[in-house]
Amino acid sequence: MRFAAYKSPGGAGLAIELPSGELRGLTETDAAFPGHLAQLLTADGGALQAAGKRLEAGRSIDPKAVEWLPPLPTPGKIICVGLNYVDHSLESGFTPPTYPTIFARFNTSLIGHGAAIRRPTVSIQLDYEGEMVAVIGKAGRHIPEARALDHVAGYSVFNDASIRDFQTRAPQWTVGKNFDGTGSFGPVFVTADELPAGGKGLHIQTRLNGQVVQDASTDDMIFSIASLISILSEAITLLPGDIIVSGTPSGVGMARKPQLFMKHGDVCEVELEGVGILSNHIADDPAHEPTLN
Amino acid sequence: MRFAAYKSPGGAGLAIELPSGELRGLTETDAAFPGHLAQLLTADGGALQAAGKRLEAGRSIDPKAVEWLPPLPTPGKIICVGLNYVDHSLESGFTPPTYPTIFARFNTSLIGHGAAIRRPTVSIQLDYEGEMVAVIGKAGRHIPEARALDHVAGYSVFNDASIRDFQTRAPQWTVGKNFDGTGSFGPVFVTADELPAGGKGLHIQTRLNGQVVQDASTDDMIFSIASLISILSEAITLLPGDIIVSGTPSGVGMARKPQLFMKHGDVCEVELEGVGILSNHIADDPAHEPTLN
Repeated sequence: MRFAAYKSPGGAGLAIELPSGELRGLTETDAAFPGHLAQLLTADGGALQAAGKRLEAGRSIDPKAVEWLPPLPTPGKIICVGLNYVDHSLESGFTPPTYPTIFARFNTSLIGHGAAIRRPTVSIQLDYEGEMVAVIGKAGRHIPEARALDHVAGYSVFNDASIRDFQTRAPQWTVGKNFDGTGSFGPVFVTADELPAGGKGLHIQTRLNGQVVQDASTDDMIFSIASLISILSEAITLLPGDIIVSGTPSGVGMARKPQLFMKHGDVCEVELEGVGILSNHIADDPAHEPTLN
Repeated sequence: MRFAAYKSPGGAGLAIELPSGELRGLTETDAAFPGHLAQLLTADGGALQAAGKRLEAGRSIDPKAVEWLPPLPTPGKIICVGLNYVDHSLESGFTPPTYPTIFARFNTSLIGHGAAIRRPTVSIQLDYEGEMVAVIGKAGRHIPEARALDHVAGYSVFNDASIRDFQTRAPQWTVGKNFDGTGSFGPVFVTADELPAGGKGLHIQTRLNGQVVQDASTDDMIFSIASLISILSEAITLLPGDIIVSGTPSGVGMARKPQLFMKHGDVCEVELEGVGILSNHIADDPAHEPTLN
């Protein structure tokens, strides 16, 4: 099944995409609302299927009339994998790793499909990174690789937009990976049964203003989804709703000659085969945006 | 005011420490329960004061009869600062930074005062790091340093226990900083009005089995709390309940000759002047702990 979260004048809602492409949905104010995806993932097995049935009977959604939200707006963990494609690792000046390079995003960086990726006033080095997301559906620690995919509920798409000069201003990348409005996620969450095991062999492509800038297969990942789950869970309990943002292939703007950064008015799309297209435009932060203090 | 979160047979609760040292508290099942600290921090101004009054009228708490929880068991962000004391930066082989080194913890790593810091089966390099925590009480972005401390609700104590070989197995430290049961936090949250502005000039000391292993002043921090808030908020919206774990002074076990790591049965205490003592024993993970899958 294919789900997407949205906001409409009727409130926050969850939609299902029918095989015909039609979207049907319900909002929090509807009596039949089955719950948000985060709730469905922590509920008993079968909750997603039951939710799908209810949503099929919901109202038809005009995709142009709603605001798309990340499928999980506040994941318990946003676990990001760096340097997980050989070519990208080399273009970034690193030896391909023998152990995963992991960094974290905070929820405040997330936006949905169709929203603006925000270029801050303090940098012009805003770069794209198209990635596949694995969504955890079952808790676990010390998960053997052979059973790791039992813990994946489904897959989605991410644009891990990065502020490169801030990413490298200190030994840890955290700030450059956490500017508000730089982590685009969604719109579709596809249940694992609809894709090849581990999301393997999927074509992933990033386009900036229509020009192909990243083009690879998820088979090129150094650490597969199953391997990442097994390695991470040696240290960390994984919980339903946690997400693994599994790394980007080569072609990032920073490594190009000349360098290619995103600017106001650009449109960046990430397409993952079998899942869909995540599209965002770029908008400059106002020079002196209103402060909250 | 001085608050602490606990779990008793009556449920999860919040306590206040009276000037006499007596603890009074209420649990979720009490009609007068004012809410958990995370809820109070996001409520309107004055919620902490009102909660304090209610808790003073609560029942007396025997500190030996309850389990202490982190003051905020699931912060929206756990923002950790590395290399924030000159001597520790040098002992770790880094030049003192000109921009903060930031990494993240996930909530699954947190434990409370009195709980076991868990030494995993996969490493013997379990190290202590005593730190001061600043708790955000007011949302903001682009916060000028001169007004940054208006955004701090109070302070607490952290033991940022680290699995050193995993911390350095990849360019990013995330896994070595996120093993389950390694982030000890609390027990006391002290409102900012009870401490020097910015938590400055406080004596911070870590003791392992009674031996002083870290001993410094929070004045030795390279980036003050006000500076961290200003710099971080250039990129990231800070929200009530977010915590900044502000870095550790020199004396960590990894940098000693010979190296000193924590082992089963050890007791590690972090004491922060004006806040209190955070104490944990160390316990080995069972060799083959039950898996959740």
